[in-house]
Amino acid sequence: MIRRVTLDLPRRFFAKMSQNSAAAPTKTSKLQVSLKTPKGTKDWADADMVIREAVFSTLSSLFKRHGGVTIDTPVFELKEILAGKYGEDSKLIYDLKDQGGELCSLRYDLTVPFARYVAMNNISAIKRYHIAKVYRRDQPAMTKGRMREFYQCDFDIAGNYESMVPDGEILSILVEGLTGLGIKDFKIKLNHRKILDGIFQVCGVKDEDVRKISSAVDKLDKTPWEAVKKEMTEEKGQTEETADKIGEYVKLNGSLQEIHSTLSKDPVLSTNELAKQGLEEIASLMNFTKAFGVDSYISFDLSLARGLDYYTGLIYEAVTAASAPPEGASELKKKAKSEEDDASAYVGVGSIAAGGRYDNLVNMFSQASGRKSNQIPCVGVSFGVERIFSLIKQRHASAAIKPTATQVFVMAFGGGKDWTGYLPERMKVAKELWKAGIEAEYVYKSKANPRKQFEAAEKSGAPLAVILGKEEYLEGKLRLKRLGQEYADDDGELIDADDVVKIVKQKLLSLHEDGVDEVTRLIKGI
Amino acid sequence: MIRRVTLDLPRRFFAKMSQNSAAAPTKTSKLQVSLKTPKGTKDWADADMVIREAVFSTLSSLFKRHGGVTIDTPVFELKEILAGKYGEDSKLIYDLKDQGGELCSLRYDLTVPFARYVAMNNISAIKRYHIAKVYRRDQPAMTKGRMREFYQCDFDIAGNYESMVPDGEILSILVEGLTGLGIKDFKIKLNHRKILDGIFQVCGVKDEDVRKISSAVDKLDKTPWEAVKKEMTEEKGQTEETADKIGEYVKLNGSLQEIHSTLSKDPVLSTNELAKQGLEEIASLMNFTKAFGVDSYISFDLSLARGLDYYTGLIYEAVTAASAPPEGASELKKKAKSEEDDASAYVGVGSIAAGGRYDNLVNMFSQASGRKSNQIPCVGVSFGVERIFSLIKQRHASAAIKPTATQVFVMAFGGGKDWTGYLPERMKVAKELWKAGIEAEYVYKSKANPRKQFEAAEKSGAPLAVILGKEEYLEGKLRLKRLGQEYADDDGELIDADDVVKIVKQKLLSLHEDGVDEVTRLIKGI
Repeated sequence: MIRRVTLDLPRRFFAKMSQNSAAAPTKTSKLQVSLKTPKGTKDWADADMVIREAVFSTLSSLFKRHGGVTIDTPVFELKEILAGKYGEDSKLIYDLKDQGGELCSLRYDLTVPFARYVAMNNISAIKRYHIAKVYRRDQPAMTKGRMREFYQCDFDIAGNYESMVPDGEILSILVEGLTGLGIKDFKIKLNHRKILDGIFQVCGVKDEDVRKISSAVDKLDKTPWEAVKKEMTEEKGQTEETADKIGEYVKLNGSLQEIHSTLSKDPVLSTNELAKQGLEEIASLMNFTKAFGVDSYISFDLSLARGLDYYTGLIYEAVTAASAPPEGASELKKKAKSEEDDASAYVGVGSIAAGGRYDNLVNMFSQASGRKSNQIPCVGVSFGVERIFSLIKQRHASAAIKPTATQVFVMAFGGGKDWTGYLPERMKVAKELWKAGIEAEYVYKSKANPRKQFEAAEKSGAPLAVILGKEEYLEGKLRLKRLGQEYADDDGELIDADDVVKIVKQKLLSLHEDGVDEVTRLIKGI
Repeated sequence: MIRRVTLDLPRRFFAKMSQNSAAAPTKTSKLQVSLKTPKGTKDWADADMVIREAVFSTLSSLFKRHGGVTIDTPVFELKEILAGKYGEDSKLIYDLKDQGGELCSLRYDLTVPFARYVAMNNISAIKRYHIAKVYRRDQPAMTKGRMREFYQCDFDIAGNYESMVPDGEILSILVEGLTGLGIKDFKIKLNHRKILDGIFQVCGVKDEDVRKISSAVDKLDKTPWEAVKKEMTEEKGQTEETADKIGEYVKLNGSLQEIHSTLSKDPVLSTNELAKQGLEEIASLMNFTKAFGVDSYISFDLSLARGLDYYTGLIYEAVTAASAPPEGASELKKKAKSEEDDASAYVGVGSIAAGGRYDNLVNMFSQASGRKSNQIPCVGVSFGVERIFSLIKQRHASAAIKPTATQVFVMAFGGGKDWTGYLPERMKVAKELWKAGIEAEYVYKSKANPRKQFEAAEKSGAPLAVILGKEEYLEGKLRLKRLGQEYADDDGELIDADDVVKIVKQKLLSLHEDGVDEVTRLIKGI
């Protein structure tokens, strides 16, 4: 739908041209602008936009159901606020140009701005949700919903609470969110940073190497073990033996019960302090995931590491069959030209929701700003709406979804030399309907013929027409008619002009009382 | 509510610090980060956020009522797309840093991205609305709602239609929007670029000087005529005589009828081709503003010029008493320190909604991109939500507005050595309520005493409690109780646990059927 014309031609031209529109380019002009959106971004419109708004509305209702309040932070933050939070991904941050004043960057996620907000306002407890755009200078894969500008829908719980209680509810929210959007065949890969760090310790990784080894492990979902091992030994200075030991642990996955039991019996790991703490937390968590009825979705997967620096406890990612790269991805990638604009052919949708616990981030801000220490543990989940959207779109065509809300089309029929077309009169009727909250349109033309008006009405998707007949209107009457092919022969009913709002309202109520609309059907997958 | 700590200290520090949280600063450390949002931006939260969302929802409903569809464009555009559209205000555009790849800028308004979208997709007709943030590096006045990051709520009609028909509807939308938000004492200053340009021509301004003289006239709402005249003659090269003639015209204002009649009788102006076209359009418009019943709001004001380059026809601005600068503003401004961070003391709220007709913008994009000419006339209006919000906030305290939607607080009461606190059981009950779409919370603690649970419930603002009594729960019973001071002595009713969803739903229906909530009351000013 979105067409792109990429013309790599001198800039500056347009500024000059538009200062004086008489100087518009002639046909021989070679100076042109690119009529496109920036790489990795797109316009949203029509049925796509209606579906996306319905997804947002479904998720906001979910978040409110769990006691969430919403906040809105600026799209850009001081550069220093974002610095050092994203590990190897920091290179993907968009900076604003230095035009004098503060140095700023576009937000990379909603989590760091949230922690900044909590620290800045000395908040001790909050459940907040935030649906907003974030920015990453990554290689885009547009049809897989991997973009440079994309929405995140986040729910986070901040506050000092009993261990794993909020974490359990966040996992329930993750499941409720995805199933509420008609996604049933997903699993939640779950791990614990303390257990992972404990594994690295007992395998012989030095403390200062832990984060970089963790980010090597994080690649296991798209990279075979041999390549990851090579990265650990050749690039990241680990011994063959250490790497092999890690390899044994990270291949473990299964239910919470199974892996918890396996690790608890492990004679080496069970003596490690970090791993012990992590395993105790998993034991508590099992009570809560059972109470919420979500344990069947969870796979305890020791290869999950998550790239971001700030996680300190539980980490998780929801994946579906579409998350993995397509078959033969690495061959496809090799074949792709280096100037390839989009990676859709050789990447998967990736995780569709993810999150974890980050207990130090708020305090990091409090301390770095010279305030007194303020330890506010946090846990949250982020839904990747564009990725989820790409799954919803695959379900079935969205052709049946009309982008306007128009309910009534106001028309006038007449003829003869003295026929004015009743334009101001149509406006008056429309205004009455608007005042009563009813969506109404009319054709922007004094004398529009009936066919043109019916065509416009059909395009709007309105189910009802209110017709001003040349003679009838003078007698204080309007004609109310159902629209649509099946009512072509129906002349409708004559009503008193004074009753139009009342009668239209009744008619619309009776039209809409039967069931589920197309958007709901599409997003809930029913 | 938003506290700011501005510490102008070396950057880069935080990046280092956070890589290793063991290296957190000691008390003697002088390296700090500023815990604040960038200048001219703020966080939105609590009741403010609830009110703002209600304003958005009111305006979206209005736009949908008029057949609008919504689109979403990226926050940044290619720099060349924005170049040359904003006259003297172009210096306020935020650029992104050149990090390789395309040069981009944050959008300055929603109009230029809309025109780019229409041209790029070869759209011939659309009524679109767009509620989104825009960016201007201007001097902020936060308490007056003048910010560097702010929302615009735009409705625009693009397409070749009969003269002034869409313009009339846009003016009706402007009035419906403001009155729907409880703003009654506003007026719409209206002018016509063609009439204004005709005036400049008959007063002797050269064609190439018209836009800069127009932007001098635009300052008349905050600057006395003498200063504007000086700008015209000393800075912008006009003769004394030309300036004086302009001065005679731009002091005219009154109803559409009055000014239309005055100008039509003007022997000089009535022979000018541009002015004649403009006056004919005003004559058509009068029919439509009358049909929509909005003419009493309109003041035809020849001093209105609007700064933006792209307007070609009707222009308008809605103002209230708060729009003008406070008394003695220029003295206050002189007294303000030059490093003053905020201009609230000496500026007004400004216009609260504004717009106009721009018939060449889409074609400018079509031609500049090397496509065939595509003349799509447009007209639109933009509501300044932050400014409107500052007026709504003045009406009365928003303390009564609760930010959460929570309806039910799930509690457990018991005691004794064997008392578990029923935490997983409370979770199960909450989950049942969530599944039924009911907003529910509980305390994140195994053994919470009754007082703590009631306090948390009160904080959430939930009207109902579902209580798991130690013995009652084992018998399959739950207790349903109204919350609030006036029900302190009410023990509630015992219900079957199996019926909890059904009974809670009934109860909530009966609680909410009586009338208007606090948010609606506040934003509609009732």
